[in-house]
Amino acid sequence: MKQALDVIKIGGNVIDHDEELASFIHAVSERSNRFILVHGGGKLATSLCDRLNIPTEFSGGRRITDAATLEVAVMVYAGQVNKKIVSMLQARYKNAIGMSGADANIIQAVQRPVAGINYGLVGDVLPGNVSAGILSLLMKIGLTPVLCPVTHNKKGQLLNTNADTIASAVAVAMSRSYDVKLYYCFEKAGVLNDPADDASVVKELDHDTYMEMKKSGTVSSGMLPKLDNAFAALQQNVKEVIITHARNINNIHAGTRLVS
Amino acid sequence: MKQALDVIKIGGNVIDHDEELASFIHAVSERSNRFILVHGGGKLATSLCDRLNIPTEFSGGRRITDAATLEVAVMVYAGQVNKKIVSMLQARYKNAIGMSGADANIIQAVQRPVAGINYGLVGDVLPGNVSAGILSLLMKIGLTPVLCPVTHNKKGQLLNTNADTIASAVAVAMSRSYDVKLYYCFEKAGVLNDPADDASVVKELDHDTYMEMKKSGTVSSGMLPKLDNAFAALQQNVKEVIITHARNINNIHAGTRLVS
Repeated sequence: MKQALDVIKIGGNVIDHDEELASFIHAVSERSNRFILVHGGGKLATSLCDRLNIPTEFSGGRRITDAATLEVAVMVYAGQVNKKIVSMLQARYKNAIGMSGADANIIQAVQRPVAGINYGLVGDVLPGNVSAGILSLLMKIGLTPVLCPVTHNKKGQLLNTNADTIASAVAVAMSRSYDVKLYYCFEKAGVLNDPADDASVVKELDHDTYMEMKKSGTVSSGMLPKLDNAFAALQQNVKEVIITHARNINNIHAGTRLVS
Repeated sequence: MKQALDVIKIGGNVIDHDEELASFIHAVSERSNRFILVHGGGKLATSLCDRLNIPTEFSGGRRITDAATLEVAVMVYAGQVNKKIVSMLQARYKNAIGMSGADANIIQAVQRPVAGINYGLVGDVLPGNVSAGILSLLMKIGLTPVLCPVTHNKKGQLLNTNADTIASAVAVAMSRSYDVKLYYCFEKAGVLNDPADDASVVKELDHDTYMEMKKSGTVSSGMLPKLDNAFAALQQNVKEVIITHARNINNIHAGTRLVS
């Protein structure tokens, strides 16, 4: 039997909300399962871009990344947010190690080809380009990897990569050696039938229903890459995908469970 | 017999000079000895502080760090500079892993007590607070640690720590298991008798001569913490300390060799 491993993505409004983040870190640090944490931080990157007068552009929920924006992304994701989370986990006796995809070459990516939209310095993760072996070794020596959404092309170029995609790719890669559960934690209760009502959580979501909700516009913008990545993971041996409020990470009855 | 290990500090004007940095990374990547790289990046931090209208204060060559300055330091050192160097090493087939002191708890520090000057969120490294064991394990699985000058207090607070101090503390800690040579690489040829003349390199420098040069003002400002740290390392089992131009890292005849 494989060992259990949780891949936990934390993002949305939780990252830049000190109390919510502290309570989330407290909760994950009390989990008994080993885990890999993946974080976003887009709002803080946007805010630093604003302070530096760098214009921010989005398309389909994804940031368009020129050289100045990449520099901000690297500073905010790999520096500010990553080290803050690592030091918070260290204070709670989790021996966290913060990493970008370039560190130990754990996630290699290719710059997204221009097809209609030029996303700039954005990296797509190809299957097989997550170094599951190194991540396993790090966990075996007692470390908890904390991954930020920055990758590289192994030719010296850092790339901006969607954190949901990273969580999904890491979960898939680790599934060869572990029984992996993938959690997407954010500031909502799960996938909602009414985006304004946290009580309207869809308890179980299958792919057909997701397609209908996408078509009708019930789910949109930032939720689309999350759910696309989540279903992709489920089709590639990840045991379970749960989308839930960061506050409910340790509540097994909360959130939306994806089913195939 | 212990294995050889080089602890190499790169700083000064090299970090923010693309060509010099590329040629330095090229040179270190061709070394056969295993090494740990420690980098600074103070000028880039100062420049980001300027862009964000955060005033920068120095005292005795050391930055005074308030909360806003610490955030910049973390973004620049742990983000921008660290990941740039890691991705450059990856492109040259060195499996680099970038780390702050918080990552894997490799360097714990205590906030410097206020004594005359309040340095703010600055961390001093106590003897025994470098996790030499984890650094050894990482090297044994084929990784090359790249350390930035950010530490933590294990209570959730990141701290700004002089990169020369980190290089010295790491060299001392690793000396229990390795024969360590410590290199301080920067934009000058070594310790100079005439600061304006790179040909005036002191080939060998002992502590008495250093004390005289300090008294006469021949060495001053940024060189003082570097040399204080370097001599401290030499007194704690580090085999050799060399202060040299980044360009000469692979030239064993260049630079200043400290002798006890």
